[in-house]
Amino acid sequence: MKRKISATLAVAFVCSVGYALSAQQSEGPQYAAGTNRLLRPDAYREWVFLSSSIGLNYPPPGAPAGPQRFDNVFVNPSAYRSFLKTGKWPDKTIFVLEFRNVGSETSANRNGRFQTGLQGIEAEVKDSRFPDGWGFFGFGTNDKDAAPLAGDTVQRCIDCHSAHTAVERTFVQFYPDLFDVAKRMGTVKPNYTDP
Amino acid sequence: MKRKISATLAVAFVCSVGYALSAQQSEGPQYAAGTNRLLRPDAYREWVFLSSSIGLNYPPPGAPAGPQRFDNVFVNPSAYRSFLKTGKWPDKTIFVLEFRNVGSETSANRNGRFQTGLQGIEAEVKDSRFPDGWGFFGFGTNDKDAAPLAGDTVQRCIDCHSAHTAVERTFVQFYPDLFDVAKRMGTVKPNYTDP
Repeated sequence: MKRKISATLAVAFVCSVGYALSAQQSEGPQYAAGTNRLLRPDAYREWVFLSSSIGLNYPPPGAPAGPQRFDNVFVNPSAYRSFLKTGKWPDKTIFVLEFRNVGSETSANRNGRFQTGLQGIEAEVKDSRFPDGWGFFGFGTNDKDAAPLAGDTVQRCIDCHSAHTAVERTFVQFYPDLFDVAKRMGTVKPNYTDP
Repeated sequence: MKRKISATLAVAFVCSVGYALSAQQSEGPQYAAGTNRLLRPDAYREWVFLSSSIGLNYPPPGAPAGPQRFDNVFVNPSAYRSFLKTGKWPDKTIFVLEFRNVGSETSANRNGRFQTGLQGIEAEVKDSRFPDGWGFFGFGTNDKDAAPLAGDTVQRCIDCHSAHTAVERTFVQFYPDLFDVAKRMGTVKPNYTDP
């Protein structure tokens, strides 16, 4: 290896590193300056898809199920790759839960259902900046950022994400490939039992 | 910018470029050397998710629908980004259609359904190496590669992907965000009518 290389190559190197850092920084949770308000994660449709479900919502006890919808879950790529190696979520993991309307086939004897318009998104973040390490957020259609949910609202999130989740505060039991990883790594919660 | 940089940096630069090229090459369709046999696209779960549906299968006319399943569709990231700009699929686009079993909630008054084990995958490729520009492939559980479907089997694929698709030979009408792009770019087929 020559010890002298051209300025052109040196510039290319710097640009390449800069791009890698920028991509990495932008895929974790980002906050409005000086606050805990999470910026809407605009690029989540290019993150890693974990799974999809239909009608799997969580009404309060005794309340009817909400209108039928598809739920899609995405996670930032660096957190996904870390989970594949460890069975745990690293600090700065961000999940997006996306709600989609349900379209139906109209032909006779066909009952397929497919995803249509966006209803909204929520986010769950593992971040040491929060007192217990986790934050939950809801985004209205035009919200550019959102404060962490608080009070009774977040307590419902925490209770459900503590009592019914297979790994940490996350529903890894619904992400089949990651559930296999967690079983292999021994990171499924000791008190978790299959639904 | 200094014109001399250390051998360490030069090595880092070479590694960085090597990684970028490798990532780019591995995300398009890959074939067994000297053949049209498509290698199983192992990394597709880290590609871009397009949509999910349930019960949306395509039995031959008059035949009953198959067992209920979830379908997930993924596309290689560079093709996705190209579509966002042009509303068309570039050469070397590869789609993976993944079939998942359906799990059901067992609690009273709950009817949510979620994705479980993998049934199998199929691939559709836009590649100028094929006579009409497209190839269709099915992968058995242990197949490391697959020959292009041929004869009556592929003719059924072609007929359906010609008569019922919104953009080129692809069901963009089921990928809501991309369908909006195609409408804006004017790439929806002139004879396409909403289902």
